[in-house]
Amino acid sequence: MHKRVIFLLLLVLFFFSCKKSDTLTVPTTENKQTENSISGDPLPSWNNGPLKEDIIAYVEKVTKKGGTDFIPIEDRIATFDNDGTLWAERPYVQELFAFYQVKKMVGANPSLAQKQPFKAVIEKDKSYFEKGGDKALIQLVGATHTGMTEDEFETSVNTFFKDAKYPGKNVPVKQIRYQPQLELLNYLRANGFKTYIVTGGTIEVVRAISQDFYGIPKDQVVGTSFKYKYDNAKNTIQRESVLDHFNDKEGKPVGIQLHIGERPVFVCGNEGGAGDIAMLKYSQGNKYPSFQLLVNHNDSIREYSYQEKDNLSLSTAAKNKWHVVSIKDDWKKVFADK
Amino acid sequence: MHKRVIFLLLLVLFFFSCKKSDTLTVPTTENKQTENSISGDPLPSWNNGPLKEDIIAYVEKVTKKGGTDFIPIEDRIATFDNDGTLWAERPYVQELFAFYQVKKMVGANPSLAQKQPFKAVIEKDKSYFEKGGDKALIQLVGATHTGMTEDEFETSVNTFFKDAKYPGKNVPVKQIRYQPQLELLNYLRANGFKTYIVTGGTIEVVRAISQDFYGIPKDQVVGTSFKYKYDNAKNTIQRESVLDHFNDKEGKPVGIQLHIGERPVFVCGNEGGAGDIAMLKYSQGNKYPSFQLLVNHNDSIREYSYQEKDNLSLSTAAKNKWHVVSIKDDWKKVFADK
Repeated sequence: MHKRVIFLLLLVLFFFSCKKSDTLTVPTTENKQTENSISGDPLPSWNNGPLKEDIIAYVEKVTKKGGTDFIPIEDRIATFDNDGTLWAERPYVQELFAFYQVKKMVGANPSLAQKQPFKAVIEKDKSYFEKGGDKALIQLVGATHTGMTEDEFETSVNTFFKDAKYPGKNVPVKQIRYQPQLELLNYLRANGFKTYIVTGGTIEVVRAISQDFYGIPKDQVVGTSFKYKYDNAKNTIQRESVLDHFNDKEGKPVGIQLHIGERPVFVCGNEGGAGDIAMLKYSQGNKYPSFQLLVNHNDSIREYSYQEKDNLSLSTAAKNKWHVVSIKDDWKKVFADK
Repeated sequence: MHKRVIFLLLLVLFFFSCKKSDTLTVPTTENKQTENSISGDPLPSWNNGPLKEDIIAYVEKVTKKGGTDFIPIEDRIATFDNDGTLWAERPYVQELFAFYQVKKMVGANPSLAQKQPFKAVIEKDKSYFEKGGDKALIQLVGATHTGMTEDEFETSVNTFFKDAKYPGKNVPVKQIRYQPQLELLNYLRANGFKTYIVTGGTIEVVRAISQDFYGIPKDQVVGTSFKYKYDNAKNTIQRESVLDHFNDKEGKPVGIQLHIGERPVFVCGNEGGAGDIAMLKYSQGNKYPSFQLLVNHNDSIREYSYQEKDNLSLSTAAKNKWHVVSIKDDWKKVFADK
């Protein structure tokens, strides 16, 4: 429980510390799809070079029937982290949702603005969460993500995504998706891979947009979950205020086993929170040839630049010969247009 | 925990009480597939009549583009129970596996035959489990299903299924699948439904055969699960001796929410253990038109005949206007040939 709370604390504090100057550069519309169809390049937003060549060589190798590296179609499991891997994570979209929920609840019941933890959020009172620690955070997550039915929660999430804009840049959340990753997902699927999101975020928040944003069905999303209880009288699922599975770090292989049931062969994560190391390592234990990809956020101009203090993800990547995406050098274009 | 233990106790006691006279009638080979292609009947092993007509009318209604009852393809979720719904459950295949594990472990380490709970299983000592209650059963499940890595467990399950014969009739386990249900699964899939197994059995045991037996991929199996732990040093998942989710009765809607993320529109379960009532009811709360199907085991000649003491599944079906399969009257053929 302690680690989970630290994570949530960091998450909330990060939100408060977001500077207004954080900007997100979204390039002007370019029809990469057309370029793709003409050139036959499956990854037009990836710069040519060794990384792109390695990805394509891997896919060709494992899909070549009769080849020694051939992977049967049912074992072509590809898992992607979401925050910082498929879309930007500064700040987390999940945070935006938590604060959206607070505002909505206070709107419906203004007296809540005088009650904690709502008061602290409304007044951007960072100290409340610093001082309150565990208790205050459990209060906040409990108040915004649980204590309602699944149907009610889904309605909230859907409404949030309809109008949500990403801070620092006035763009819909959909436009913080990484264009090169959308192409990579499509390329893998075109070659018989089943693509999954394996996220530290809560499962229903990501499921609300997975099909529309990434072409990934709800049941191919693995994430953090709360305890559910079936309410027989109301014939609904109630979301209880108890964390069931925290799908980050060593929780990711566990979530993969529970939801997918086998080791992935292709895994993509990102440096920044060391959240994907275990999942990358787990895939490397596959009996089939596997591919590990780690996104390095080193582009302060077009995206963001941030590192882990101990550089753990990048040093583990180097040690295990994982592939590293330099956003600055490997991605011709960063964000999807719409 | 108490209910779970009762379930396991019943399961074990049932195994011991199996009479040798229990027989399974497997019809001689008939090429229904050819008959199907000629007649254009998608459900050739279902007798013509109101039930078959209702199934076909439902599927046609909800897949008719522009119709008022149309269900978008991503919401065509069909869930099937396994034991007693897709294959026979007298006895449970899961039980056969537990006892197989005991024998294997005793074979590798004969001194175990003197230790409980192995001794009781080897000697068919029913009283040990009657007297020992919770403790003895937790011992048995712990010893046979946990305390090993996922890779080791999967190897065991695969080896078990390779040679397993069904008691009472010397047929491979594959031949206790219900032929009409295989046709129904295919028919639904041909109409854009995504088919899932939602079983009270443990998830990995069913995943081992789901693709081969039913054309259902591993990640479309929802079941009872133990706690997993990622072992970083060994880069494996360890199966811990703690039940995580018991996927029976009111656990089924919970499992569906966690793994699938939405209410099914088509659900099929069976009477016998009242295990599917909650799942059937849950699907009826769908915003789309839904279909509930309950298999009634009333064919003592070709399959088995058994009822719940309080008749709860059948009375709930009548109350809620669910469709009931009379194996005796609705199924032209019961078991798949191979």
